[in-house]
Amino acid sequence: MDILFENAKVITMDDDAPYLENAYVAVTGRKIEYIGNEKPKAQAKRCINAGGKLLMPGLINTHTHVPMTLFRGLSDDCELDVWLREHIWPAEDKLCPDSVRAGTEIAVAEMLASGTTSFSDSYFFVDAIADVAEKSGIRANLSRSIVGSGENFDGMPSVAEAKALIERIHMQDGGRLRADVSIHAEYTSETECRIKTAQIAKDNGLILQIHTSETSAEHDKCIEKYGRTPTAQFEHEGLFEGTRPLLAHCCYMTGEDMDILKSAGGSVAHCPVSNLKLASGVAPVLSMLSHGLNVTLATDGVASNNNTDMFEEIKLFAILHKGINNDPAAIDAYTALKAATVNGAKAQGRSDCGKIAAGFEADIIMLDFDRVHLTPCHNAVSNVVYAARGSDVVMTMVAGKILYENGEFTTVDIERAKRLVRA
Amino acid sequence: MDILFENAKVITMDDDAPYLENAYVAVTGRKIEYIGNEKPKAQAKRCINAGGKLLMPGLINTHTHVPMTLFRGLSDDCELDVWLREHIWPAEDKLCPDSVRAGTEIAVAEMLASGTTSFSDSYFFVDAIADVAEKSGIRANLSRSIVGSGENFDGMPSVAEAKALIERIHMQDGGRLRADVSIHAEYTSETECRIKTAQIAKDNGLILQIHTSETSAEHDKCIEKYGRTPTAQFEHEGLFEGTRPLLAHCCYMTGEDMDILKSAGGSVAHCPVSNLKLASGVAPVLSMLSHGLNVTLATDGVASNNNTDMFEEIKLFAILHKGINNDPAAIDAYTALKAATVNGAKAQGRSDCGKIAAGFEADIIMLDFDRVHLTPCHNAVSNVVYAARGSDVVMTMVAGKILYENGEFTTVDIERAKRLVRA
Repeated sequence: MDILFENAKVITMDDDAPYLENAYVAVTGRKIEYIGNEKPKAQAKRCINAGGKLLMPGLINTHTHVPMTLFRGLSDDCELDVWLREHIWPAEDKLCPDSVRAGTEIAVAEMLASGTTSFSDSYFFVDAIADVAEKSGIRANLSRSIVGSGENFDGMPSVAEAKALIERIHMQDGGRLRADVSIHAEYTSETECRIKTAQIAKDNGLILQIHTSETSAEHDKCIEKYGRTPTAQFEHEGLFEGTRPLLAHCCYMTGEDMDILKSAGGSVAHCPVSNLKLASGVAPVLSMLSHGLNVTLATDGVASNNNTDMFEEIKLFAILHKGINNDPAAIDAYTALKAATVNGAKAQGRSDCGKIAAGFEADIIMLDFDRVHLTPCHNAVSNVVYAARGSDVVMTMVAGKILYENGEFTTVDIERAKRLVRA
Repeated sequence: MDILFENAKVITMDDDAPYLENAYVAVTGRKIEYIGNEKPKAQAKRCINAGGKLLMPGLINTHTHVPMTLFRGLSDDCELDVWLREHIWPAEDKLCPDSVRAGTEIAVAEMLASGTTSFSDSYFFVDAIADVAEKSGIRANLSRSIVGSGENFDGMPSVAEAKALIERIHMQDGGRLRADVSIHAEYTSETECRIKTAQIAKDNGLILQIHTSETSAEHDKCIEKYGRTPTAQFEHEGLFEGTRPLLAHCCYMTGEDMDILKSAGGSVAHCPVSNLKLASGVAPVLSMLSHGLNVTLATDGVASNNNTDMFEEIKLFAILHKGINNDPAAIDAYTALKAATVNGAKAQGRSDCGKIAAGFEADIIMLDFDRVHLTPCHNAVSNVVYAARGSDVVMTMVAGKILYENGEFTTVDIERAKRLVRA
């Protein structure tokens, strides 16, 4: 046994026993070996006294663009079109592998320090992103975002990069790194491009990420063009067969779209902060839940958030849909936490993540529950969802390795990364 | 000169020079003596190197019920009626001065640690609340909430307590403590009670706090009863004359109500987190702003939030109304910050608070701007509003006194307070 946590409060996200007090959690190699109230007999290499602390599964951010930390606060509070054309796209045009590497390091450090142990990404310069994901020890589903008409598809550099990424990282380090495939969106691609991109996912058994019905303009123009919503059009093109689609945003998804996605075994990456900040709208999440859809949570890129703190998404998810639907019972705290843990794992195609349970990957975070804003604690799940912040995380472990502890990173040279992104 | 901050980024909230770099801020006694880029010649008793840090005015929380920290997470995710009748009211029934004192200490500590330097409160056992406010050094407008018919008004213990509170604290410590007067709400009082309560405010030149149009049920029943909205009814009863009303929530305020409140020189305490969590609704804030109303921000009590982190309110204020109104430019970052600083000061009747400017009270907070989630910093106001959290505050000063620094409280025995609220 490598690490034994003693005397812990634990939110397991295991429905059979969701909460334990005075518990032991044992980690051997990359796996959780034991969780329970009996002290294991074997000697641990390291014991961590978790008195006054809370253990829970690491959070899973299912939709982001990690290098966009470089654009934190570069532009806010303006029309989407102005934001993209005058600020974000010109800034993206100046990116290079070195700057993407630096921006990714900041993002990964920020995620680890606020309790995110796994993320799903789509962007470009993916080799630089993969370098950081590999070295940092964080869990990730990475993808190269593809746009275009599909003409000369096999000659497109983005397609070559997408294929090289799969070759390089998929199922590396015991599955810690996975490759997904990404169609950027309906409005930035044509049918031929989408079908060929989805084929890469099908050929490799990978998950297909797509920005879907993020804005009303995108949604409505698609209906005008094809007579179908983006989701219905994607299904019509056969993109969803065997690709477990992970659709981001889905602010304008219809009930029929939900049925389609449910049948495809897909998931929604709900981004409440980004959707409000960019004024995209409010996704019909209660309807998604009643359709039995797998709803997960995500920060989107930092340019539209402007951080990667999943605790903000969890709280906003829990309260926004209450307020909008005039129903204080609409989403309870445990449902919100599921979206950020077990549901996220499912959307990433990971059946051994998202819970603290024997045999699962040891992706564990520890929160300091002695802090004043978490006092008193009548209900641990409530305190995590409604009172905690990312900064309450004092330890982050991925696949059995401690990557962040008491303000220090074990795999990221944070001062160097800060210098680089400020340059 | 007592304290000199050197080498600081400063958000002043002074429209003439809202942002300075490499600035000096000098504090003498309880006042800001100087802010600018020239180093003052006088020697300071203490110099604080603010390199990598950001100084800004302390945040002002204009509507809360501080002892309700005791009920953090006691009950969530249920119907308002069930929440109140089955959980909150029975718990309130068991309160005593000692428990209120302990709950208030936790709230004050939490506020200081997350950058709130002043708050407006309405509750009961106000003597215990005043004890903590007095001793802790925080700035506060305290009030005793009054309910009832108005029959035997002068014999009501609550009225005696309200009057005693005014006598005891109003304008104590150079105005750091002020008494307000509080009518709980329209639905918990009758006209006679409200008129007599408002008279106490008029007699003493005090601000009148009232929960107003928080829920649609309250708003609609008032119209049914009087043929007027709560705000119109209050004006009709003459409550607003000279009382600079501070109306909390206002989710269902009409344009006519806004005109009334504007004429009365009043303010709105907007509580975005609480309004969503209790499913009260979304206040028509854009209309309030275009009516020229003084919109301020507040957490409400911890039972419906579940913390007192004003950074959450600021971010949600800035993004919620963008999302709901399909306008990404609806509320910009600087407007959001004004609501939590200068506007709050105005609502509290404090003309010398809310800015970092010479002659103003030295209510200053310092944020660690070197943190990974605040890197890079393209725009300091954007980073404060969209990326920061309460835990980024590393120093909180009220009226020239440092009350919180690097995790330590100078006036609150935090370990004792935690023990008491857990008991």
